[in-house]
Amino acid sequence: MNYLTTDKLVIVGAAGMIGSNMAQTAIMMGLTPNICLYDPYGPALEGVAEELRHCGFEGLNLTYTTDVKEALTDAKYIVNSGGAARKAGMTREDLLKGNAAIAEQFGKDVRAYCPDVRHIVVVFNPADITGLVTLLYSGLKPSQVTTLAALDSTRLRSELSKYFGIPADEIVNSRTYGGHGEQMAVFASTTMMNGKPLTEIIGTEKLPDKDWEEIKLKVVQGGKNIIDLRGRSSFQSPAYLSIEMIGAAMGGTPFRWPAGVYVNNDRYQHIMMAMETTITKDGVKVMPVKGTPAEEEALDKSYRHLCALRDEVISLGIMPPIDQWGKLNSNLG
Amino acid sequence: MNYLTTDKLVIVGAAGMIGSNMAQTAIMMGLTPNICLYDPYGPALEGVAEELRHCGFEGLNLTYTTDVKEALTDAKYIVNSGGAARKAGMTREDLLKGNAAIAEQFGKDVRAYCPDVRHIVVVFNPADITGLVTLLYSGLKPSQVTTLAALDSTRLRSELSKYFGIPADEIVNSRTYGGHGEQMAVFASTTMMNGKPLTEIIGTEKLPDKDWEEIKLKVVQGGKNIIDLRGRSSFQSPAYLSIEMIGAAMGGTPFRWPAGVYVNNDRYQHIMMAMETTITKDGVKVMPVKGTPAEEEALDKSYRHLCALRDEVISLGIMPPIDQWGKLNSNLG
Repeated sequence: MNYLTTDKLVIVGAAGMIGSNMAQTAIMMGLTPNICLYDPYGPALEGVAEELRHCGFEGLNLTYTTDVKEALTDAKYIVNSGGAARKAGMTREDLLKGNAAIAEQFGKDVRAYCPDVRHIVVVFNPADITGLVTLLYSGLKPSQVTTLAALDSTRLRSELSKYFGIPADEIVNSRTYGGHGEQMAVFASTTMMNGKPLTEIIGTEKLPDKDWEEIKLKVVQGGKNIIDLRGRSSFQSPAYLSIEMIGAAMGGTPFRWPAGVYVNNDRYQHIMMAMETTITKDGVKVMPVKGTPAEEEALDKSYRHLCALRDEVISLGIMPPIDQWGKLNSNLG
Repeated sequence: MNYLTTDKLVIVGAAGMIGSNMAQTAIMMGLTPNICLYDPYGPALEGVAEELRHCGFEGLNLTYTTDVKEALTDAKYIVNSGGAARKAGMTREDLLKGNAAIAEQFGKDVRAYCPDVRHIVVVFNPADITGLVTLLYSGLKPSQVTTLAALDSTRLRSELSKYFGIPADEIVNSRTYGGHGEQMAVFASTTMMNGKPLTEIIGTEKLPDKDWEEIKLKVVQGGKNIIDLRGRSSFQSPAYLSIEMIGAAMGGTPFRWPAGVYVNNDRYQHIMMAMETTITKDGVKVMPVKGTPAEEEALDKSYRHLCALRDEVISLGIMPPIDQWGKLNSNLG
């Protein structure tokens, strides 16, 4: 089997449904033979490693460990789905605090054990925050950390495909930016159907406004819908897409969807949000995107919501105030 | 994305853990864009279809249905993991009867809706029986039906790799034939380590007999061990390997492990068992294999066990007596 690179890829949270799928996906994509599975939950982690050994892959050098230092040492690429799931009785703030704390420790571990890592994809929720916290504490450059942010866009494509009864391929460049779910900014003007922008179709009899609102609602509820249907959170799509992202960062197939990225420019400051990007061996780069005035306004609104969430995290003492970020990570100064 | 073929592939049992992994694996392997997911459990099936749509695959024509006729019509390849799992209070015989009945109906459905199917891989337990029942009622040729039988061999490779602390690739041609688990016949003489048959290593200080017995026990308990470790039955390895099998039947990468196949020759009659095979576009073909006298005897014993199981199934009225098989399927006459 030919692999794209021999660099060490670490899957954090490998004992879980997303992490175990990530590992299988990375192997099948032929990214690297050197894959290390890490998770603090030893038995399930070993079970995943056993399953993957039992697949009989060729040329694979699969390791696993519950020791974070061992896992991260020499890591060049990391995909992290190792957050906690929301449990009964937990408030949204409990989850936010818990996963932000996990991201903080992860960032510190990266700084301590693999400062030469090339790229990290953060998947656990809320990824805009956990990615930002990881970036802050790891000391990495903004180009080296991305978060999974493609699912709203792929769900938009899927819903449009179902609505019009056409192959998903005929819907090109479906895009949401900014935050996720209810906070996403849908850029319908960039979405092409048979060469026509979706904005020219919305409000016509082909796609009445009411139906368009329903489509967007279905996108927002896409994750909840999976739970209702399958009785478990989605794991195949987040796993697959995040491995596509790390594959692009390794110099493989370009990633075709928005990614969560640290933005600090004239318009948006000190925030992690879904943007148009390219992900290459040189890392992630924000690409320009131009929507209608209403879409741009929606993106501004989404940004403001993300700022409020970030500031809440700061006020909870999980992150220091922005003016102190440069002390923690000189790349953010 | 380039696909191996455009023939219709049906995943039966697609709502389950094995089936949903099969679908993702088949897409990622680029076997065919025309994949139909079938399962009688509608909501979970839709959830799996949604997840796969959300992956954003290119060029995919994914359909799903709870209507078996719709699913099987025009099917050219089928992988079936649609058996029932053993539930609390069920005896072994209950499970056997239940899954044999499912296989019988599946065989009849194949005969009714897709008599031109090229190849079927049967995965649900006990696969030696469910595969045989499928073959009998479908009317297909023995070359067109295989069962997943590779896991004992991949587990043997994995256990040897762990025991010797060497890459799995250095263990070549690890093989078990006949039945599964405790009934498997291990062909250590065909297994090469650095060019040396394993039989020359067993009983030496490198691999004392006691340790070899422990390795075999670990292979037998490989599936149970996954349940103990992960809290769920293995699904990634059976899914991956069975899709490798159907890929080989489509003319893709050769399958590198034993497969369950209908055998009726001078030595073994009217039985489905793990053998050395090739799987190509022309179907499955049994290949000769030569073990030590002790290994050959173990295979004979394994065959006799499978015959007893088959005869039990006949005595339960699930299958007709062998002398009537030709009336049901002229290819077995």
